[in-house]
Amino acid sequence: MYVFGIDIGGTNTKIGIFLEDGSLVENWFITTNKDLVFLNTAKSIKKYCEEKDIALNEILGYGVGIPGIMKNGLAVECVNLGWENINVIEQFKQALGYDALVEAYNDAKLAALGELNALKNKYKSIALITIGTGIGCGIVIDGKIYEGEHGLSGEIGHLRLDTIHQFKCGCGRVGCIETVCSATGMVRLAHLYGKDKDEKMMNPKLTAKEVLNEAALGNSIALKVLDEACSNLAKALDVLSLTINPNAFIIGGGVSYGGDLLLDCIKKHYFNGYLKQARAIDILLSNLRNDAGIYGAAALILRKKNGEKDYGNS
Amino acid sequence: MYVFGIDIGGTNTKIGIFLEDGSLVENWFITTNKDLVFLNTAKSIKKYCEEKDIALNEILGYGVGIPGIMKNGLAVECVNLGWENINVIEQFKQALGYDALVEAYNDAKLAALGELNALKNKYKSIALITIGTGIGCGIVIDGKIYEGEHGLSGEIGHLRLDTIHQFKCGCGRVGCIETVCSATGMVRLAHLYGKDKDEKMMNPKLTAKEVLNEAALGNSIALKVLDEACSNLAKALDVLSLTINPNAFIIGGGVSYGGDLLLDCIKKHYFNGYLKQARAIDILLSNLRNDAGIYGAAALILRKKNGEKDYGNS
Repeated sequence: MYVFGIDIGGTNTKIGIFLEDGSLVENWFITTNKDLVFLNTAKSIKKYCEEKDIALNEILGYGVGIPGIMKNGLAVECVNLGWENINVIEQFKQALGYDALVEAYNDAKLAALGELNALKNKYKSIALITIGTGIGCGIVIDGKIYEGEHGLSGEIGHLRLDTIHQFKCGCGRVGCIETVCSATGMVRLAHLYGKDKDEKMMNPKLTAKEVLNEAALGNSIALKVLDEACSNLAKALDVLSLTINPNAFIIGGGVSYGGDLLLDCIKKHYFNGYLKQARAIDILLSNLRNDAGIYGAAALILRKKNGEKDYGNS
Repeated sequence: MYVFGIDIGGTNTKIGIFLEDGSLVENWFITTNKDLVFLNTAKSIKKYCEEKDIALNEILGYGVGIPGIMKNGLAVECVNLGWENINVIEQFKQALGYDALVEAYNDAKLAALGELNALKNKYKSIALITIGTGIGCGIVIDGKIYEGEHGLSGEIGHLRLDTIHQFKCGCGRVGCIETVCSATGMVRLAHLYGKDKDEKMMNPKLTAKEVLNEAALGNSIALKVLDEACSNLAKALDVLSLTINPNAFIIGGGVSYGGDLLLDCIKKHYFNGYLKQARAIDILLSNLRNDAGIYGAAALILRKKNGEKDYGNS
């Protein structure tokens, strides 16, 4: 029997096929066409199954990750895809053309479930912080995905903790940490601090990866950007420690290729300002990186099949 | 059959006796003697039972609220009482002198359970914000008390969201909202803004209640204090909406006697800066006020007796 884990992104959609023991058989991606998200995903899966001679009754189900605010399988708001109140479960079933088992959650939340499993039950409750174009956060409490009552739980990119710049955020507010510590935010800071000082940092095509590489080489502007981004991330972890209070924070998303340089800088700021009890919370880098989402999506279906009823909080 | 709900405070210990349907029979308080907390509480209860001819086998159990960081019945830290790692359940059983059913949680968390019940299941998940000498917060998710992995969940008084003054907090850090929006914090601000301007606000014995009364009368300094306190409280609610994301925020604690003046000011700031989905969260004043703790403590035992196993998150 097989399970599909799907991670829909604004640019690409990742698809993975897994065995019942949770091991990955194969994965690939297709370009996301915003008008044909479900249809193209279903088509790609069907094509794969035809090629490999996999019949419908060999497929346990499909877990789907969505880059937006999700509640009970409904995409409440998904800015990247231009969605509002889209019933992901029903629409994907229609695209598949049969009454399959489909489950859908926010992408960071599924990635958090993937990371929890990869850590082999070392922790009961974790918060995965994904640093990419934006800042996401997936929360798993007692092994169960936590959405909150309106799907807002984990929208930490919109914590208004930046007290220096007050840049305007896509959400319409100012001071959201996403504006200074996402990949986009780091580039924004590099452009700000590099002006008349550092040509490299002023490259209009500068990426967060380049900023991190320069920081690793000792570039003072890049180090300043890193420090400020990590200071804001640490503030967000502090907030999470006083509200969700998980066992561990996992740092993931594209920017986590910054590795120990990034991790150590976050730790420096976090442990500099913790409440005593918050010291017990571990901070580590993602294990599954970009694949966390498809692993978590597959795990969702496997758990359901194994009789775990209440893995979500719906 | 009877249940006792106990709410231990730094100054007074409240005790209530309840029937199995959750209704209060009688309540009273004793002065808290920090060296004899459990013994004096047990003595007071025994004396009551002797007077009323209540036998031990008529008592279902005892719910106990503690003003500090609690996890699985252990008082991890309780500054008011000078406690560290005190096993409340064991010590209270010893004081009672028999193997009774005893459950213990943080006081704000029990008060939140009391409020949830008083709202007759209108909400599944709430956060009760208690504004008194300090700022507390009790979180109930899906009807269950939520402690977090180290009992830190709800320690929102230590959210460092004050960006103006950076007053030093009892926890050793600066900028905690407790320093500006607790009763003590409001008096601190009144003294600061009233200097050379408002004699009433400079009274060394000024209370938060007097500040609120003056604000209601239109005193501009008192209104400034109220506005700043509520602005910080609203920031804390914003944080809770992006992490815990409950159905409702309940405003309780001593300062909640500020009534609609306080509530409207919090709402003004909160709804001025919400994410769209966070608008769905209600904000209301406490129903049970100072009695919320004993009601919640009793409810804890009644739920256990009714077979609800997992009302906590231990």
